[in-house]
Amino acid sequence: MNESDFIAALRKLPLHDGARNLEDDAAILEVGSETLVLTHDTIVSGVHFLPFQDMADVAWKLVTTNLSDLAAKGAEPVGILLSHMLSTNDDRFVQGLTEVLETYGCPLLGGDTVSSDGPPTYGVTAVGRATHSPVPSRGGAQAGDSVYITGPVGAAMLGFEALRDDTSAGGSAYTRPIPLLAEGQALAPVVTAIMDVSDGVLLDASRIAKASKVTLDIDPASVPIATPEARRDEALRWGDDYQLLFTLPDTATLPVSATRIGRVLEPTDSPILLEGTAPDRDSPLGYSH
Amino acid sequence: MNESDFIAALRKLPLHDGARNLEDDAAILEVGSETLVLTHDTIVSGVHFLPFQDMADVAWKLVTTNLSDLAAKGAEPVGILLSHMLSTNDDRFVQGLTEVLETYGCPLLGGDTVSSDGPPTYGVTAVGRATHSPVPSRGGAQAGDSVYITGPVGAAMLGFEALRDDTSAGGSAYTRPIPLLAEGQALAPVVTAIMDVSDGVLLDASRIAKASKVTLDIDPASVPIATPEARRDEALRWGDDYQLLFTLPDTATLPVSATRIGRVLEPTDSPILLEGTAPDRDSPLGYSH
Repeated sequence: MNESDFIAALRKLPLHDGARNLEDDAAILEVGSETLVLTHDTIVSGVHFLPFQDMADVAWKLVTTNLSDLAAKGAEPVGILLSHMLSTNDDRFVQGLTEVLETYGCPLLGGDTVSSDGPPTYGVTAVGRATHSPVPSRGGAQAGDSVYITGPVGAAMLGFEALRDDTSAGGSAYTRPIPLLAEGQALAPVVTAIMDVSDGVLLDASRIAKASKVTLDIDPASVPIATPEARRDEALRWGDDYQLLFTLPDTATLPVSATRIGRVLEPTDSPILLEGTAPDRDSPLGYSH
Repeated sequence: MNESDFIAALRKLPLHDGARNLEDDAAILEVGSETLVLTHDTIVSGVHFLPFQDMADVAWKLVTTNLSDLAAKGAEPVGILLSHMLSTNDDRFVQGLTEVLETYGCPLLGGDTVSSDGPPTYGVTAVGRATHSPVPSRGGAQAGDSVYITGPVGAAMLGFEALRDDTSAGGSAYTRPIPLLAEGQALAPVVTAIMDVSDGVLLDASRIAKASKVTLDIDPASVPIATPEARRDEALRWGDDYQLLFTLPDTATLPVSATRIGRVLEPTDSPILLEGTAPDRDSPLGYSH
């Protein structure tokens, strides 16, 4: 079964109200007067990271991609559960895990350890506590809102290439992404829709559009990029930058530094437009993991 | 790194109070006036299940082993997050998932789907709500308590053998274990220590003993078994039966059907005794996954 068929099959299961039809990267769980946010990411060697990477970086990124999902909900980290396949370089994995958990004040809650001859596979379930209710989703963008992004995209692409090609040009954007937790908490009370950019700004914009049943008209030239201008198109289609992409009514005050990159329209045949024109349907908008 | 070294390394990480030093199969999370119980199990084809098994059974067991961890905390299921590696027979996996989630009223909260060429690997994080506070642990057995088990062991061993040998003698104990949720909820207010028997009654008894800093004196002949008498020693060392093993003061009334199999002593050099005698240290007490 391919991924979209599988997820379609899962949608027929008994779904928790907080699963939000599995469209979001996080589940919402009301517990008494509190609201928890739950996320899970699994990564596989050779698929989600390069087999020769420093496992300390892999552990860092596994945790921070989950914390980025919490950030997009305005949640603060409570703890993680770790699924760990024993392998070589587990000492480096633990080192990176120590660094990331200390950096973000996010303790270990539990998990499971397994052995296998297959490619090392790791999972993290992160638990966060919502700081604002209702918890924002991808689904609330309204025609007339503006579209914003918190910072440049493309840095992770350069970082990946430097790692792959063993040059020093890359920086840490690919290996050690930073979850925008404070920004997410500041944005949660005012945004109409929000998500973290994991798969490319254009693809993720189209996801906000579909979930909100609107069209997002993006001005590609206005998106801040961390690459040379010649690589703008690639930067807009590469993921892993973990900026926050959100929509905001024009009456609201922007609570964080961000760049306006488009506006929300009534729904059209295309979930996103690029300066008013529907993108080529045969050309991928981004990277689907 | 081997598993015990890895877990020892994890114990040096920032640990959540509810992680209980990672000794327990579940983490405890106080949220306002509620207490949540969180568990995670990961399974790998060829390690935790036979590659030719019906994937509906594999999905069932993946969920029920987590629900059994909730049962041992007296918790009721709230929902699960699923980590799924796409493979052949995903339709059967979804079928089993549907059956188990409907049977236990446990909706899907979210998760992640990945692709890999490696052996299919699946994970579940289960969230439960504690029905009694404080949540029981492995660590409270007191000298003078009696040791009980809710039912026979060895049925899963027979089921595994029938599956492996393609005979019809096995029943469903190995493929479709039943989490003792109602029994766990009845026991939580009265037990001093409790866990589910996943790795063999003797090994798991030794874990209660170590966590409680006592010795458990088990009468092997009194343990109910689902096998012929000639296989008693094996049945006591085989896991996967998911009975509840617990300790109870003699003043307490037994709230569920269970068999007394031993008593709790002040600590000795050996965490468990078999009718007063320390077991051979070189002979395994059970199955460590």
